[in-house]
Amino acid sequence: MTTGVWLVGGRGSVAVTSLIGALAMRAGLAGPTGCVTELPEFAGAALPALTDLVFGGHDVASVPLVKKAESLADAGIVPASLVRALDEELALAEHELRPVPSEGGQAEAAAQMAADLTAFRERHGLRRVVVVNVATTEPVVTPNPAHADLDALEAELSGGGAVLPPSSLAAYAAFQAGCSFVDFTPSTGARLPALDQLALQRAVPYAGHDGKTGETLVKSVLAPMFAMRNLRVRTWSGTNLLGGGDGANLAEPGPNAAKTASKQKVLQETLGYLPQGTTRIDYLEDLGDFKTAWDLVMFEGFLGRSMRMEFTWHGCDSALAAPLVLDLARLTSAAHEAGYSGALTELAFFFKDPLGAVPHGLADQWRMLCDFADGLRDAPGNAGEPK
Amino acid sequence: MTTGVWLVGGRGSVAVTSLIGALAMRAGLAGPTGCVTELPEFAGAALPALTDLVFGGHDVASVPLVKKAESLADAGIVPASLVRALDEELALAEHELRPVPSEGGQAEAAAQMAADLTAFRERHGLRRVVVVNVATTEPVVTPNPAHADLDALEAELSGGGAVLPPSSLAAYAAFQAGCSFVDFTPSTGARLPALDQLALQRAVPYAGHDGKTGETLVKSVLAPMFAMRNLRVRTWSGTNLLGGGDGANLAEPGPNAAKTASKQKVLQETLGYLPQGTTRIDYLEDLGDFKTAWDLVMFEGFLGRSMRMEFTWHGCDSALAAPLVLDLARLTSAAHEAGYSGALTELAFFFKDPLGAVPHGLADQWRMLCDFADGLRDAPGNAGEPK
Amino acid sequence: MTTGVWLVGGRGSVAVTSLIGALAMRAGLAGPTGCVTELPEFAGAALPALTDLVFGGHDVASVPLVKKAESLADAGIVPASLVRALDEELALAEHELRPVPSEGGQAEAAAQMAADLTAFRERHGLRRVVVVNVATTEPVVTPNPAHADLDALEAELSGGGAVLPPSSLAAYAAFQAGCSFVDFTPSTGARLPALDQLALQRAVPYAGHDGKTGETLVKSVLAPMFAMRNLRVRTWSGTNLLGGGDGANLAEPGPNAAKTASKQKVLQETLGYLPQGTTRIDYLEDLGDFKTAWDLVMFEGFLGRSMRMEFTWHGCDSALAAPLVLDLARLTSAAHEAGYSGALTELAFFFKDPLGAVPHGLADQWRMLCDFADGLRDAPGNAGEPK
Amino acid sequence: MTTGVWLVGGRGSVAVTSLIGALAMRAGLAGPTGCVTELPEFAGAALPALTDLVFGGHDVASVPLVKKAESLADAGIVPASLVRALDEELALAEHELRPVPSEGGQAEAAAQMAADLTAFRERHGLRRVVVVNVATTEPVVTPNPAHADLDALEAELSGGGAVLPPSSLAAYAAFQAGCSFVDFTPSTGARLPALDQLALQRAVPYAGHDGKTGETLVKSVLAPMFAMRNLRVRTWSGTNLLGGGDGANLAEPGPNAAKTASKQKVLQETLGYLPQGTTRIDYLEDLGDFKTAWDLVMFEGFLGRSMRMEFTWHGCDSALAAPLVLDLARLTSAAHEAGYSGALTELAFFFKDPLGAVPHGLADQWRMLCDFADGLRDAPGNAGEPK
Repeated sequence: MTTGVWLVGGRGSVAVTSLIGALAMRAGLAGPTGCVTELPEFAGAALPALTDLVFGGHDVASVPLVKKAESLADAGIVPASLVRALDEELALAEHELRPVPSEGGQAEAAAQMAADLTAFRERHGLRRVVVVNVATTEPVVTPNPAHADLDALEAELSGGGAVLPPSSLAAYAAFQAGCSFVDFTPSTGARLPALDQLALQRAVPYAGHDGKTGETLVKSVLAPMFAMRNLRVRTWSGTNLLGGGDGANLAEPGPNAAKTASKQKVLQETLGYLPQGTTRIDYLEDLGDFKTAWDLVMFEGFLGRSMRMEFTWHGCDSALAAPLVLDLARLTSAAHEAGYSGALTELAFFFKDPLGAVPHGLADQWRMLCDFADGLRDAPGNAGEPK
Repeated sequence: MTTGVWLVGGRGSVAVTSLIGALAMRAGLAGPTGCVTELPEFAGAALPALTDLVFGGHDVASVPLVKKAESLADAGIVPASLVRALDEELALAEHELRPVPSEGGQAEAAAQMAADLTAFRERHGLRRVVVVNVATTEPVVTPNPAHADLDALEAELSGGGAVLPPSSLAAYAAFQAGCSFVDFTPSTGARLPALDQLALQRAVPYAGHDGKTGETLVKSVLAPMFAMRNLRVRTWSGTNLLGGGDGANLAEPGPNAAKTASKQKVLQETLGYLPQGTTRIDYLEDLGDFKTAWDLVMFEGFLGRSMRMEFTWHGCDSALAAPLVLDLARLTSAAHEAGYSGALTELAFFFKDPLGAVPHGLADQWRMLCDFADGLRDAPGNAGEPK
Repeated sequence: MTTGVWLVGGRGSVAVTSLIGALAMRAGLAGPTGCVTELPEFAGAALPALTDLVFGGHDVASVPLVKKAESLADAGIVPASLVRALDEELALAEHELRPVPSEGGQAEAAAQMAADLTAFRERHGLRRVVVVNVATTEPVVTPNPAHADLDALEAELSGGGAVLPPSSLAAYAAFQAGCSFVDFTPSTGARLPALDQLALQRAVPYAGHDGKTGETLVKSVLAPMFAMRNLRVRTWSGTNLLGGGDGANLAEPGPNAAKTASKQKVLQETLGYLPQGTTRIDYLEDLGDFKTAWDLVMFEGFLGRSMRMEFTWHGCDSALAAPLVLDLARLTSAAHEAGYSGALTELAFFFKDPLGAVPHGLADQWRMLCDFADGLRDAPGNAGEPK
Repeated sequence: MTTGVWLVGGRGSVAVTSLIGALAMRAGLAGPTGCVTELPEFAGAALPALTDLVFGGHDVASVPLVKKAESLADAGIVPASLVRALDEELALAEHELRPVPSEGGQAEAAAQMAADLTAFRERHGLRRVVVVNVATTEPVVTPNPAHADLDALEAELSGGGAVLPPSSLAAYAAFQAGCSFVDFTPSTGARLPALDQLALQRAVPYAGHDGKTGETLVKSVLAPMFAMRNLRVRTWSGTNLLGGGDGANLAEPGPNAAKTASKQKVLQETLGYLPQGTTRIDYLEDLGDFKTAWDLVMFEGFLGRSMRMEFTWHGCDSALAAPLVLDLARLTSAAHEAGYSGALTELAFFFKDPLGAVPHGLADQWRMLCDFADGLRDAPGNAGEPK
């Protein structure tokens, strides 16, 4: 079951790390560490094999894939030996990348992107294509009445309006082309009522949003711990220092607000109240793709006794995100195959700000994900072999 | 349903903090922060009310309860205002404490302790008594053939043998007196085949062991997080600095070995392998009842990329343990009432080194505990009022 | 040599902690931990004895001293037993506090404050009075031409102008009354050319500014360490979480800017360049008078190898500041006695943002301070007894 | 003034990193970050230029230098590009390494080593050779009467005795050959009265011991900070996690005891008392040449208020040590030139456990070092050009 993975932001760090990893695993040069869907719980769940994924993508940038891969190796994100060994495969993958259409209005751009997707599917004889947004985080979007209703949106677009942020335009094009969609960033993407209507109309599923890769992942197990022990968290204060393109962008007030709001939800949802404290994001160019987060948690125990814990997280963002991109592509594609459409709330495990009224504690999300995999395994069409 | 709680080590910090807390809640002077069984999941589960608990205990020490309470207040473990307000109640509780029998052999001591328990039950007209061991941790016990079989044990004791460590003798006496038993420490307690036989014979349940209050609690949510994300933990190294009586004792090689072995199990069980690194316990008198733990976790992600996290935990051990003692007393007593006997594996949530082949991840243990509470709620005898 | 200490913000946490400490030491109830001037290096340096200090002050607030002292005890800043033992002394000290004049213009207010100082000096037969500003931090001041020249300032004030921030008005009044002045906060205080002229004219010294009590203190030894080892600091990023009145105020953009600028100077001055990174101040009401700072330092070593260190500081601000207030009062008063006037750059050791072109490394500042003490010891008038 | 640097343990990580660095600087491929003697304070101090150093050494191992250099690059200690660029220079340096003599008694071994040194000096026409011990740390040495007196030692050796640990035998050989000596490890080295006599007899200086590269360096600025502020340190507890050959060795009880004792001296010396707490060293193979140290400091401030700070240090040991090896070679050689002999106490700045009754605070050691450099600069023979 060869499956297409179309990466919006296909020349970015996360995309290229995903691509290198998939190519390396296909060549037997690397193991699946970090890939959730390679755990025993997902065996037989009718997922496309990691080695059956074919990659393409859009990007506004034009840095060659091989160059980008080398810069990832220089930065210590991927092994230099892998990049050298995959030289040819990367050069081939280059042919599947397309520029983001920049001429004409949003309607024309969407049509062009949908055409790119259709051509990709036909060129490779793919059964399914899943579009994954890993482009740079956008500022919080300005509300517009056309977001609330598909007819209004279509009218607006056909009238030459430019009412969608780029991530939502990508989702619109994906749905028009019959592709499923994954929002890996905090950008708006498919999260507009008009786009939800379109997904349901085209019977395609979408997942999101904002991949949970570091500080929030830790919060999603620590906050339930405090809740299960009936300990009252009074303060939870986090500082995130990050570099790289994403860091520079997130230091801008707009995207920063989007991201920090997304990062606080887990506390309200798992504790049932919001402790004091904020989540800061600071840009430090020198950190590159690495991120250091420090969190201070002050809590109250028996008879009011105050206690505290702190943690520091030193992660490599692209290395944490890339295997999840592969997981989400496999799961969303399988869901599409199994007939799911609209919001895939079952994939909350992967996201900081998951779709739907779902639990935010990691253990509950894990159970939900395993149940979802069980459902795929038991689906009528799953004969344990390519359909 | 008035229930007796008999504390072995009744003049120690954990015991007295539990007592102060129970008295304070009964007097309406404190809320139940830290008490797991006061969470909504346990409503209607036929537990004895916190305000229906009556306390007694054994101790080798003779410090008056009021003095001990004042020293806990001076150390910042409990509020001084509570100790002042509960002056009379503490003086009354003093009457329920008995010395540990020190004359004669172990058979005589056990008989005396069982008599103390029976007298306590009759004096207060208690339906159930649960014995909780919160005495100082013992060294690892020397194996003895009499531990493996109840008949052999009885023969040994009646022949004047002294083959049981104090914690096991306390469990023996509890079972003889028809009381349930909770091992809150890493000491041997009821964990001998001979004592398991006795518990089943007398149809009493027992729970244990080693209350999970700090570093191991955090490990029990972080280790599953790494496992669920298919991240490979290469190193997990912990340092525990603690003072107080327990710290001094745990710095001795014997008890230290017992405790650190208990603290590492969670990694093997939740990860499926044991990473490099050890768990250290160092005694620092100055820390008193407070504990600082620092853990370094180095893990490998996608394509071998190495990352790390660290956490520091600054907890007050008695304040963390005391509400769990109350929880365990309520749950064990209710299990006794509902007909459970032998090892109560369902209470793994509370322990570093739980009985039985049970999960070590906190979320799985939580689910098991909630199922247990549901079972109690649905038990035939639970009419929602005192039986 | 009885010396007067007049505290601007005399009912605040720092002031009252200083007062309690001085009274406790006089009563033999506490030792001088935290008092720099009690180290052997200052023996015989003609400082007024800690037991010879007499306290007064201005404050806009009216909370009684005893009440404030009790709230400091409740917050764990000072021992409750001390507050109880000093009940009478605190009641007496209450009589020496005066409201900040609020009627009339700045000229009238200054005259009233100077009259308060003179009356205090005469009432107690004091040889010297030193005014110490420990009031809440002000926003950065709006520049005004009258700040640059004493004549212009006098003209402005006598014309009814209100051109001075409160801290500078306090310094003006102090100088007019022939008192020395210490700026313990980042507020403007005496740091205006016009006020420097006045201090020289009246032959009084002044010191400042912004007491170095926590994160910056640590920076002032770590930054020189990196410099002395020729290690290149690439990033120094700090997060300060603090509560209390000062925290609430510093979270306001104005004072925050003043404080964070002050906190970064030590890096530029000791390293010779400014690394990436910022110093954040966040307000967390729950922390009360306690402060937690976390700093991440990334540095480059031999052949470009990147390394890092982190530190966390958990301090009690008033407990750190109070003994330095006593130190500064003693040293400034002795300098006044020894004939110093104008900016006392020799006291840089105590300040985040010291006066003059002085070293910012703590060790160099310490040497300068010890030299200053040696100078006082050797001064002609110092006969080793009260002059 | 071409100067020889003879490295005992010449194929180890520290030695090869020093060599790569010196070669890289000579080739203009790297700057002197981490080299103390390149700071302005040392300009004109008659030190041999970094580019004038010639390297040789002894080692029991036989791994080729180029292989070792590549393994250092793989481990991220030195840049791979440097190793590639210095391929030829490393191959040349290979010719200057000699095996440690293993046949015959200690007298024969010493004679052979001295001959190796003399041949090295003559082969390159070197004015001075300094021997630096960077071999693996030895266990604490067994005391022997022959250590106390040179005559007794000579008698013992000539009688076929083997009474010196390898590091001391290396020092003995160095002195016999008229070379100065630097103890960079905690091993015994020149620190025996008999060897001190020999050094004085031969008029050669020696320095040591145990290079101060990480946790102790930080302690040597933080401990004086607490002392200067009259804050009482109650507890100082450190955990060092390290891998590599040194880590494996230091985990052995013997060397571990030597190292941890060395690490605690700075506290006693700078504080004037020894706080509670220990310094742990744990071996974690996975850390390789990197070291993580965590220290907890609990201190008491004004009126007994307890506070704390923690720090974590993530360093690359060889990268921290290597430039100091170059510094010490330059300084010791210059001292030799200037007529110093015996213990060079002036170099305490570089050592955990410095020779002589010297200050342990870094700032005082720095001042002593700068005075020493000033002395070299002003020495009669220093004409600002090669002598």
